[in-house]
Amino acid sequence: MLFFVSMDVSLPTSMPNDEAAALKLKEREFSQQLQRDGKWRHLWRVVGQYSNVSIFDVDSPDELHTILLSLPLFPYMKMHVVALCAHPSSIQETDR
Amino acid sequence: MLFFVSMDVSLPTSMPNDEAAALKLKEREFSQQLQRDGKWRHLWRVVGQYSNVSIFDVDSPDELHTILLSLPLFPYMKMHVVALCAHPSSIQETDR
Amino acid sequence: MLFFVSMDVSLPTSMPNDEAAALKLKEREFSQQLQRDGKWRHLWRVVGQYSNVSIFDVDSPDELHTILLSLPLFPYMKMHVVALCAHPSSIQETDR
Amino acid sequence: MLFFVSMDVSLPTSMPNDEAAALKLKEREFSQQLQRDGKWRHLWRVVGQYSNVSIFDVDSPDELHTILLSLPLFPYMKMHVVALCAHPSSIQETDR
Amino acid sequence: MLFFVSMDVSLPTSMPNDEAAALKLKEREFSQQLQRDGKWRHLWRVVGQYSNVSIFDVDSPDELHTILLSLPLFPYMKMHVVALCAHPSSIQETDR
Amino acid sequence: MLFFVSMDVSLPTSMPNDEAAALKLKEREFSQQLQRDGKWRHLWRVVGQYSNVSIFDVDSPDELHTILLSLPLFPYMKMHVVALCAHPSSIQETDR
Amino acid sequence: MLFFVSMDVSLPTSMPNDEAAALKLKEREFSQQLQRDGKWRHLWRVVGQYSNVSIFDVDSPDELHTILLSLPLFPYMKMHVVALCAHPSSIQETDR
Amino acid sequence: MLFFVSMDVSLPTSMPNDEAAALKLKEREFSQQLQRDGKWRHLWRVVGQYSNVSIFDVDSPDELHTILLSLPLFPYMKMHVVALCAHPSSIQETDR
Amino acid sequence: MLFFVSMDVSLPTSMPNDEAAALKLKEREFSQQLQRDGKWRHLWRVVGQYSNVSIFDVDSPDELHTILLSLPLFPYMKMHVVALCAHPSSIQETDR
Amino acid sequence: MLFFVSMDVSLPTSMPNDEAAALKLKEREFSQQLQRDGKWRHLWRVVGQYSNVSIFDVDSPDELHTILLSLPLFPYMKMHVVALCAHPSSIQETDR
Repeated sequence: MLFFVSMDVSLPTSMPNDEAAALKLKEREFSQQLQRDGKWRHLWRVVGQYSNVSIFDVDSPDELHTILLSLPLFPYMKMHVVALCAHPSSIQETDR
Repeated sequence: MLFFVSMDVSLPTSMPNDEAAALKLKEREFSQQLQRDGKWRHLWRVVGQYSNVSIFDVDSPDELHTILLSLPLFPYMKMHVVALCAHPSSIQETDR
Repeated sequence: MLFFVSMDVSLPTSMPNDEAAALKLKEREFSQQLQRDGKWRHLWRVVGQYSNVSIFDVDSPDELHTILLSLPLFPYMKMHVVALCAHPSSIQETDR
Repeated sequence: MLFFVSMDVSLPTSMPNDEAAALKLKEREFSQQLQRDGKWRHLWRVVGQYSNVSIFDVDSPDELHTILLSLPLFPYMKMHVVALCAHPSSIQETDR
Repeated sequence: MLFFVSMDVSLPTSMPNDEAAALKLKEREFSQQLQRDGKWRHLWRVVGQYSNVSIFDVDSPDELHTILLSLPLFPYMKMHVVALCAHPSSIQETDR
Repeated sequence: MLFFVSMDVSLPTSMPNDEAAALKLKEREFSQQLQRDGKWRHLWRVVGQYSNVSIFDVDSPDELHTILLSLPLFPYMKMHVVALCAHPSSIQETDR
Repeated sequence: MLFFVSMDVSLPTSMPNDEAAALKLKEREFSQQLQRDGKWRHLWRVVGQYSNVSIFDVDSPDELHTILLSLPLFPYMKMHVVALCAHPSSIQETDR
Repeated sequence: MLFFVSMDVSLPTSMPNDEAAALKLKEREFSQQLQRDGKWRHLWRVVGQYSNVSIFDVDSPDELHTILLSLPLFPYMKMHVVALCAHPSSIQETDR
Repeated sequence: MLFFVSMDVSLPTSMPNDEAAALKLKEREFSQQLQRDGKWRHLWRVVGQYSNVSIFDVDSPDELHTILLSLPLFPYMKMHVVALCAHPSSIQETDR
Repeated sequence: MLFFVSMDVSLPTSMPNDEAAALKLKEREFSQQLQRDGKWRHLWRVVGQYSNVSIFDVDSPDELHTILLSLPLFPYMKMHVVALCAHPSSIQETDR
């Protein structure tokens, strides 16, 4: 089942650069594994923001919650989650 | 280039049923042609709302504007448009 | 899977009383059937509002959307849908 | 009498891990005792958030206030409290 | 138990004057009976608004809901209800 | 003349316990003196919040401002002030 | 005592021109009499809006309420009222 | 030309008392000089807030910007600026 | 002097097509005359909205107000006006 | 293609003056280079705010994102980005 998720990252400006870099690297590896697993279906950057909009494809809301809480940047993100369903006019098989 | 667009439809409850049905049918055909043309890349329904979230892939902001204004339901929709770009952690070639 | 749904009803003050009464009766019967089916798990009235807060237990987001759109009062309601999951501190088996 | 309560937890990222863990453990024990006492009737996690939505069944607004202020995480939570009453269409005896 | 209630009245400007006057008269009589019964404890007008702020003293949230829905102006009002309890610094016996 | 005032208190979680306790004690004494003087007419706690709603009876807006700024917790409160006047339907002599 | 009042006027576009003109004329005369009486101390137009910001000098909140409700355009205005007092740095005798 | 400006001051509670006092004194002197120069035409305190509402009379938007940025408390203030013009119903020569 | 103005147009869906077309034609001519006069310096369409963002260059706030109120679409627009001044880093002579 | 961008700068009041000055100087040089390159087309200061409104002319949303993230003040700014297109009534060749 599909969920729209937007994430706004806000790292404290006091965080040391190398700590921030390490955190972002972990986030990146974590995110790419989820993409390879087919869980994190789409991932786009919002122009001018340290934010993304994403589509997740999970087996249950519980699985989505487990994934989102495991994100290394979770403590520094505001999330907005929206449950999606098939649009009657959609012709994209993969969007159902 | 990619844009995130959300659309909330609000038909007046006074609109006759057949007028509403005709409008929705036109919207559907219009939308499916744009999907076949590769312009309207993704289209999902928001659970519990007469709303969708969409991804458009257009040649320019002008083209997107022309498309959105041509939607048969445009006068009855609130739109929110967000410019997207490639996310550095994305591994989906088609999301760039 | 569980979803929190709040619904605010706003009937136009111009709607004839018997039309409003018939609509509410249909809504009531529809709602009670869904409660008997175990889909509409909880239903409370908000004090001082023509609104409710509800818990739905459905097989998929698509099923929830189909149910909500079928509500006789849907065209007159604003809905807010929130995906839920098991709380690690909950001891209620039925809330999972 | 029933109250809907939503709670958003926001621990400062500077709080040491063991302090946070101890606080969460106390919150958990406190919450489970209240559930066993029948005061905290329902408790769900919001997907993607460090938040819950809950239903309390208390003898008075004063009792609810005393409970909520005693929560170990209270200083780190934003709360929203809504008074509920029986919905005329509800068939759940326990939701009255 | 005590509840703070604010009410914003918005009569359609198309409502005939005598209909509005009759409605307001009924509201007034209804409100004064509730005040004499000790249910509607305080009632103030907000300066410059067709609004009031009120304190109700009721036996239960259900009773409050029944009262508010019975107000002749209910279909034309936006309500905001807040549950109150005794303030530890209050010395007013009647505010408990 | 009467004013509705709501106050939300937000003490920094870093404030030492005894400093907070001393501040609250001073606030309490200050508030009770104003109640005895008839200036702070009503004082209620909002359920689930470190907030109150209050009614002040003062000789002028200047006097109200002087009182509110003198509150020991003033630097830690958000205030909302609303001017009140007699409601034409009120039968409470003391609410005028 | 002084109050800041902002007023946003919103006449229905369906109102006949002569009715709107008559209403505005009455408002103007009413407003100018109040200015001559020293009650409506200042009156400015907000650039690009059918709105004003004003300062009233009245004997009581009740008097202000009576004045504002008597404005011919009252049913078509949204009002925002803020109680003012002397600023300790002000050197304008007339602003006290 | 006239501008409405509202200013909300928020000094960090960690600022030493004498630093705050020195800052406020400078602000006061600066403000009074601008009042004597006829630039800061009106200055009122908002009841219950560390805020003011003001009217400035300047030769250009650039001059207003220069003045506002020079305020000693500028780094601790939120400002809201609204361009004003003559109201057709105003009879105050000085409000044009 | 320069002002940023954004305008959102919202024509009632009940307006006859030819009436809407006539109104838009008048708006267009009016707008182009102001552009030729150098008063309406910039005019852009917001993608996906019946809205624009504009820069006006006028002699006074009064002149801007007179212009905006004269727009044929004024009764159907929401406006937001922001006073601008020279940016210290700008190298565009014409943006001062 | 054109984008409207507004930027609100908020430097922590604890930042040392020379660090702030160095940062602003870098921002200024960066901004002026982009203006000379024709990428940052317009740049205005908002009166009374440490904010600007700007027009960018870029080859793609990706290019805009790269530019905005490279701004020395980016970690201290809130940004709002709006995609623009040619307005049918515009006569400015350079605004297309």
